[in-house]
Amino acid sequence: MTFSVYMPPSAKLLPVPVIWYLSGLTCTHANVTDKGEYRRLASELGLAIVCPDTSPRGENIPDESDNWQFGTGAAFYLDATQAPYADNYNMYSYIVTELPNLIGEHFNVDLKRQGIMGHSMGGHGALTIALKNPTRYLSISAFSPICSPINCPWGQKALGEFIGGNPIDNHSQWAQHDAVELVKSSSTNTKDSLLVLIDQGEADNFLDEQLKIKLLEDAAAATDFPMQIRMQPGYDHSYFFIATFINEHISFHASALID
Amino acid sequence: MTFSVYMPPSAKLLPVPVIWYLSGLTCTHANVTDKGEYRRLASELGLAIVCPDTSPRGENIPDESDNWQFGTGAAFYLDATQAPYADNYNMYSYIVTELPNLIGEHFNVDLKRQGIMGHSMGGHGALTIALKNPTRYLSISAFSPICSPINCPWGQKALGEFIGGNPIDNHSQWAQHDAVELVKSSSTNTKDSLLVLIDQGEADNFLDEQLKIKLLEDAAAATDFPMQIRMQPGYDHSYFFIATFINEHISFHASALID
Repeated sequence: MTFSVYMPPSAKLLPVPVIWYLSGLTCTHANVTDKGEYRRLASELGLAIVCPDTSPRGENIPDESDNWQFGTGAAFYLDATQAPYADNYNMYSYIVTELPNLIGEHFNVDLKRQGIMGHSMGGHGALTIALKNPTRYLSISAFSPICSPINCPWGQKALGEFIGGNPIDNHSQWAQHDAVELVKSSSTNTKDSLLVLIDQGEADNFLDEQLKIKLLEDAAAATDFPMQIRMQPGYDHSYFFIATFINEHISFHASALID
Repeated sequence: MTFSVYMPPSAKLLPVPVIWYLSGLTCTHANVTDKGEYRRLASELGLAIVCPDTSPRGENIPDESDNWQFGTGAAFYLDATQAPYADNYNMYSYIVTELPNLIGEHFNVDLKRQGIMGHSMGGHGALTIALKNPTRYLSISAFSPICSPINCPWGQKALGEFIGGNPIDNHSQWAQHDAVELVKSSSTNTKDSLLVLIDQGEADNFLDEQLKIKLLEDAAAATDFPMQIRMQPGYDHSYFFIATFINEHISFHASALID
């Protein structure tokens, strides 16, 4: 598994907080590493930023090679339970346990101070992972997240293959991988402790069919889960959108991670 | 010919100065557009940034397809005089005349206020083009420029093919495409009016054989041409180097371009 790590100069003196950046469909660690424009502010604020890949990769890893929306580059940050995916597609465990252990061993990071962010499928990953581990992460942010895999074609395909069944008969299992459902069932403690910032471009081609920010807004409002959800007029789904607002996301995480 | 244009919000109100960014071997307009991290400060300062391609491209354009150092992606910002290149390889005229005319027609730029910058082969382009047109450009900056094509393998190959002959017999022609030679023959007016900033990484693999910043430093010192040449310890030839210092370059150009 390939990933990139940015370490700020201050890590030479003290353990620094870490932000995980989860990428979207078709991406590797490299897209945001090249285009994300996050290093300058992370350097100034003293934050490590780790960018993992989006799926297992390799010759014997099952995939649908003509489908960019599923499989390689599209593992949806969950642990698959269905064959042939269950052996390799364990991105949830990788992001929550395996990679932090590795990073903690080799870099001067303070794993008591973790934030998590992501884009599109990675926004889904950041939201669902942090909502299931609200004491591990202090802050979540997302660009254009897939808010409800249960309710969009990308998510229905992925969950159907990775965990099996359908959103009605297997609702309790599917709901574990759906930020809207996790918000609905969040505890008061979670709502009080987790800080959430989301930016969504209004000119994003995927907004209506795949991303569905409105479902998340409604769930947050209905359950009194305080979230900053910002609609950004004119912005699309691209890395230019991410680069425009990433400093605000990093500052947001810093407000939770740095005393 | 493909290029990217960044226009700052202030261009809606007033014509803005323009900085041309010339890229290096193998690049297109896209590399710096994706990785250059220049938009935030250009937005704040009100500067247009235009990033051209590095060569003509197309099915019938002569090239050495197995050689990344010459031809497509490697046109060296000069007007070729030798067959088969003279018909298409006219990057000097493109950068100095054709593209500015096009940009001036379609965007709200003030062509009385132009700066030029570049990386590697594009640093060579920025230096030679501005040194030959010292009233047209107010400021030059370069990252890791090829300082003396006459004295390095990349440049000898390119000049030999594009303008013919060799650096001894055709010295006066070759010298027109060599920043070190142009510095030596610069007028007092040029030295007084053109601002020059250069950053060179000390861990750059190409420094000794291809880039040869020392020749430029020596020529500038010998002719009293004031230049800011900064050696940057630990930095290589990559876009991470460019992204680290590009804000300082943009601020430098702004000091010349904005009252």
